[in-house]
Amino acid sequence: MSNHSTSPAASRRLGIDIGGTSIKAGTVNQENEIIGRAAVPTDAGRPWQTVAQDIVKAAQLALQDAGHTEKECLSLGVGCPGTIDAQSGTVVYSNNLHWKDVPLAQALQKAFSLPVHISNDANCATLGEVRAGAAKNCKNVVLLTLGTGVGSGIVLDGRLFEGSGPGGAEFGHTLLVMDGERCTCGRRGCLESYASATALIRQAKKAAETQPNSLLAKLCEGDLSRMDGRIPFTAARSGDAAGQRVVKQYIAYLAAGITNAVNIFRPEMVLLSGGISKEGAYLTDPLEKLVRQNAFGGAASFLPQIRTAALGNDAGIIGAANL
Amino acid sequence: MSNHSTSPAASRRLGIDIGGTSIKAGTVNQENEIIGRAAVPTDAGRPWQTVAQDIVKAAQLALQDAGHTEKECLSLGVGCPGTIDAQSGTVVYSNNLHWKDVPLAQALQKAFSLPVHISNDANCATLGEVRAGAAKNCKNVVLLTLGTGVGSGIVLDGRLFEGSGPGGAEFGHTLLVMDGERCTCGRRGCLESYASATALIRQAKKAAETQPNSLLAKLCEGDLSRMDGRIPFTAARSGDAAGQRVVKQYIAYLAAGITNAVNIFRPEMVLLSGGISKEGAYLTDPLEKLVRQNAFGGAASFLPQIRTAALGNDAGIIGAANL
Repeated sequence: MSNHSTSPAASRRLGIDIGGTSIKAGTVNQENEIIGRAAVPTDAGRPWQTVAQDIVKAAQLALQDAGHTEKECLSLGVGCPGTIDAQSGTVVYSNNLHWKDVPLAQALQKAFSLPVHISNDANCATLGEVRAGAAKNCKNVVLLTLGTGVGSGIVLDGRLFEGSGPGGAEFGHTLLVMDGERCTCGRRGCLESYASATALIRQAKKAAETQPNSLLAKLCEGDLSRMDGRIPFTAARSGDAAGQRVVKQYIAYLAAGITNAVNIFRPEMVLLSGGISKEGAYLTDPLEKLVRQNAFGGAASFLPQIRTAALGNDAGIIGAANL
Repeated sequence: MSNHSTSPAASRRLGIDIGGTSIKAGTVNQENEIIGRAAVPTDAGRPWQTVAQDIVKAAQLALQDAGHTEKECLSLGVGCPGTIDAQSGTVVYSNNLHWKDVPLAQALQKAFSLPVHISNDANCATLGEVRAGAAKNCKNVVLLTLGTGVGSGIVLDGRLFEGSGPGGAEFGHTLLVMDGERCTCGRRGCLESYASATALIRQAKKAAETQPNSLLAKLCEGDLSRMDGRIPFTAARSGDAAGQRVVKQYIAYLAAGITNAVNIFRPEMVLLSGGISKEGAYLTDPLEKLVRQNAFGGAASFLPQIRTAALGNDAGIIGAANL
């Protein structure tokens, strides 16, 4: 996929993060610092060819911002939501972008004389955190993004794990409860349907409905559609029993998913990102306790640190640049 | 861990499989054919130092059987039941052997001038099947042993995956049902507590109890303690409704666990070994159908072949020889 002809002094890398609202581009140096940036609107729903043109534009603007040219770069990497075939450079399916079988790497290859790599956005965020963020220097890391869904990325022996084919590293789509809650993937009982922000909001609404005098309910100001992922934590921190029950149950679900990851991967670190991860130690402390109790071999076994991601949106750019 | 000084022509490898009843040793050639064999009783429960002496004895007998010497060998590998620290060569914990923190590799190293490696027995069986068995030439493989428990091994990019610390690749101890059946590991709801032979027997006994006129019950000849992992399949194949319900439910449990493995690893192949795997296509055909339905991305996604292991007990020896 490459007709690479950069200068021997080339040391920059280009990274693109295709988000739901904006396409973010950055150039990074050897220390993985972002030295040039640009962003253009994603305008999801447009034909992929038009979006691809804007990806090229964003990359060029980032180069311009950094004051260097393509010749000073080693590679271009793209993080994209959905199921990605990294080997062929194809977006197999992206719900967010309304794309199916899009040969994105091939299209971008026409605009750049750099090797082009693509991967899933959560994969890129994980790689970014391992190269330059909270998991720097870790060899085996599992990251879970707690947002609308539960995304995940897996780094093994320092490298992104992609599996033999597309659709792997989908830890959000492993079971917590067989035949349980309906998941967006069509299956029932996946981690995503219990530990996403969407799931937390559902759990909190249900509790607020039956306990209208709780702080959990009152923080919605008479309108349960105002429930978000922060309110249950705010209520719980204030000592509200309903809020505490919701948060305790949510943490139990998430801990069960993390324990599964520990029993499979024994990573040095489990990283949490996405909206819910902003709760910090209020989330990670009880998670570590539950994982210690329930992991195979218990408290004496090899257990990971559970941390929140450090780079925010930059993780995706830096990870993509390192594909 | 090595003071290796073999002859330049060395090309054999020694493999040891420590089982519950016997210690099996073999030497393999470059084609991974076993060319010398020996077995001595395990006599589990003895002090580990005594067992280690018998491991040395078994290895020497296997060399003798093959008609060659240690100098013609490149390495010695040992597969051991339990939680193994491959890096330090320690058996962290083995329930079957009643061992805790046993420096096995170090002890064996004193008897041989070969590099000594140890790993979990299911890991070795997986590596054996990848090097010389049903998954030959596959890069990403997950193996589940369906026996007293559910053991597992994971080969990624052609190499055994061990994680950052001991206690990984324990796929049998990931959830099917949060807060479900009590598992041997202390947690509730693990795959092992639904898909092991032990679990199948429990499920079949329960069904036979409530349906005493079923073939499932009759095959136990009036004594439900005679129930084994084969009877439900025999009854189901004969058209017995009770047997068919038990087998269908068991396969649904196992398929759910395999679907989890697919969503994480997207392996080229999932291998089943152990007693239950002898049911062959009667087991793997419906498993493939259910995995196709439930995997992330469905039937259009990258799906593994589901096969039964080919090497039987030899897988452990060959895998250990390849550590």
